[in-house]
Amino acid sequence: MADIIIKNAYVLTMDPDAGDIKKGTVVIEDGKITEIGVKTKESADTVIDAKGSVVMPGLVNTHTHAAMTLFRGYADDLQLAEWLEKHIWPAEAQLTAEDVYRGSLLACLEMIRSGTTSFADMYFFMDETAKAVEASGLRASLSHGLIELWNEEKGENDLKEGKRFVRAWQGAAKGRIKTMYGPHAPNTCSDEFLAKVKEAARQDGAGLHIHVLETEAELLAMKERYGKCSVHMLDDIGFFGPDVLAAHCVWLSDGDIEVLREKGVNVSHNPISNMKLASGTAPVYKMLERGVNVSLGTDGCASNNNLDLFEEMKTAALLHKLSTCNPTALPARQVLQMATVNGAKALGTETGMLKTGMKADMIIVDMKKPHLTPCFDVPSHLVYSAGGSDVRTTIVDGKILMQDYRVMVLDEQKVIEEAQKAAEELVARVNS
Amino acid sequence: MADIIIKNAYVLTMDPDAGDIKKGTVVIEDGKITEIGVKTKESADTVIDAKGSVVMPGLVNTHTHAAMTLFRGYADDLQLAEWLEKHIWPAEAQLTAEDVYRGSLLACLEMIRSGTTSFADMYFFMDETAKAVEASGLRASLSHGLIELWNEEKGENDLKEGKRFVRAWQGAAKGRIKTMYGPHAPNTCSDEFLAKVKEAARQDGAGLHIHVLETEAELLAMKERYGKCSVHMLDDIGFFGPDVLAAHCVWLSDGDIEVLREKGVNVSHNPISNMKLASGTAPVYKMLERGVNVSLGTDGCASNNNLDLFEEMKTAALLHKLSTCNPTALPARQVLQMATVNGAKALGTETGMLKTGMKADMIIVDMKKPHLTPCFDVPSHLVYSAGGSDVRTTIVDGKILMQDYRVMVLDEQKVIEEAQKAAEELVARVNS
Repeated sequence: MADIIIKNAYVLTMDPDAGDIKKGTVVIEDGKITEIGVKTKESADTVIDAKGSVVMPGLVNTHTHAAMTLFRGYADDLQLAEWLEKHIWPAEAQLTAEDVYRGSLLACLEMIRSGTTSFADMYFFMDETAKAVEASGLRASLSHGLIELWNEEKGENDLKEGKRFVRAWQGAAKGRIKTMYGPHAPNTCSDEFLAKVKEAARQDGAGLHIHVLETEAELLAMKERYGKCSVHMLDDIGFFGPDVLAAHCVWLSDGDIEVLREKGVNVSHNPISNMKLASGTAPVYKMLERGVNVSLGTDGCASNNNLDLFEEMKTAALLHKLSTCNPTALPARQVLQMATVNGAKALGTETGMLKTGMKADMIIVDMKKPHLTPCFDVPSHLVYSAGGSDVRTTIVDGKILMQDYRVMVLDEQKVIEEAQKAAEELVARVNS
Repeated sequence: MADIIIKNAYVLTMDPDAGDIKKGTVVIEDGKITEIGVKTKESADTVIDAKGSVVMPGLVNTHTHAAMTLFRGYADDLQLAEWLEKHIWPAEAQLTAEDVYRGSLLACLEMIRSGTTSFADMYFFMDETAKAVEASGLRASLSHGLIELWNEEKGENDLKEGKRFVRAWQGAAKGRIKTMYGPHAPNTCSDEFLAKVKEAARQDGAGLHIHVLETEAELLAMKERYGKCSVHMLDDIGFFGPDVLAAHCVWLSDGDIEVLREKGVNVSHNPISNMKLASGTAPVYKMLERGVNVSLGTDGCASNNNLDLFEEMKTAALLHKLSTCNPTALPARQVLQMATVNGAKALGTETGMLKTGMKADMIIVDMKKPHLTPCFDVPSHLVYSAGGSDVRTTIVDGKILMQDYRVMVLDEQKVIEEAQKAAEELVARVNS
């Protein structure tokens, strides 16, 4: 007897060998996909009739700072320096562990509602984010942000905390939590410190999550300091490999792209944040063309201002058609691949595809809506017409987190109210 | 006794003299706003408690082709010529009047659901779109598309039909329908024909809706034919004035912007369509800075692929921050103004603001949702975090079209099913 059977769905497997099944069935048992096909002879405790809906892999958000939901709309439409120095950093200075829990739980709720089943996060008080992931049922790759700032003592303390966190939570929540090292960026950490962090990650068999060339300012600072850009500095210290998740990668040269490809680095593209902060346009078309594994991230809610990967998919498709003057760039199916298969590859999870033996992370998208009518091509609708609010059911590790728009794992009103309260108190502290 | 009272709402008036009311009341009687304030002594048949919600002017979509909802997702990710010649035109050749009715009704339903209360449309079989507007309760400025193509007979027939339509529907649906002349574009209509259309519009006191410099191809064709661009050609034949609604305006020089400003031309900016078709980036920041009235449009669903003006607002804000390398460009409140006040000005309707004496076109947006928590700044949330699916109530001309997510004026399931059927039969005819 299986746990869950989803029947009568349009099955978008994202598995190149299987293709789509127009009216198909997915069987889930013990957290895994045990069967996919037109019909099944199995029976199950829970049978979901998904007529008029699409079942597809859950979306993977490869770069965010979940707790920053508390800063959603707190400061917008500002120059980067003013935004950071006058608003975000003073607010972060007042953040408590409990705030991080409240904000992370709100982020998890929002992700469940909008079809994201796993995410990569870098922030601080990460035990709290891990607890929120555990409580919400999501899957996550978490890292404590290490910001050395050429201060040896701070570097040592940060690395110590990063190491403690990696070891404390690796494999927690029945394996749904993975941990990574999170050196912040090449312009906030010295090359020596970055080499040390790399060594620690190698010892622990953990991945590395880092911001790379988000801004032109970083590029200029690196050239000034090292006479080379971030990518070449990181390459020269042996930092790169398939265990590295590099967020943003906006200011890349063709040579940088070649390094990323050669070393199998995973790139997280964050188009909305890059546009909102006017950081620039990452060369995503070129990266994909040359075989770099590019996935999608929302970045934190202070620079987006939501966690809806459907919006991120549409924006990525639009931005790179415009930036390459080529309306055939980043077609719908490729963008879906970035948000599922490529994201799962970046996080090293057995998800991102609906395939027998894979972990059962999937979403059911309601297609019987005015803005999704008529339907000629499912991938087109998912990228260009749908939004996170069209996700009706979210399943992670074989567990139903939301069914028919009803969140099963969290008390939604309570999460909203407590986050609102935490944010108000936080701002009161900042202003006092 | 009033008809409707909305109380306990955050009232975003968009009226520069009034500002926002954090907990306020809007009173509606006989299709107009009769009172706005903190409290009212009035009573009403319908009292809406909008606690935790925002009431704001309904959004105005100043450029679309409603019936093209039937082509949503029909052909994507293609070069413009292939998209038009191999897919859209062959499908349009098979469109019947009934198809246009079905597609327009679906568009109206989608607009009601996503908070658009009025729109400007240019297409054919426009009697059918007018009937759909009448049935749905929306407000619209409609025009029959005139495509002369340097064929005198076709030009005459088109103009005759355009004139008949203008006169037949002007002021219909209790004044909710206005009619315009719709000469398609300067590269599909001769200068002589455009001058004739302008004269007809003058005689009828009707406005003009035209595509201008959507593509570089148009710019090059105009320089080849006239030795000047579309804007200067149109200016030289006396076409421009505050009665003109010019869609796209992507390939403008600084001199063109000056002409548009001087003549009071209304521009409809369509960022998503321009990005999806890789048409280019309209100089919106410059236009706004110089005082051109720029509003927002979604364009048709074949190049978007939905009618959600919330998406269009966010995309406009993001695109022009990126294109100007300036994160302070197009702040949230200015983008809201484009989608409300500026749109209403472009269509010449007494809407776009919540103000005593104005027509009662407004929407109520639900803010008690995870992705809208916490709330520090309402305009920021409306532009950067919200989507059309957060609109809970839509009111046009003092009539409730949707209340608490329930559409009151149309049989939603029937509209969806009949549009799906019409689209399937249309494609069968195209392929036969």
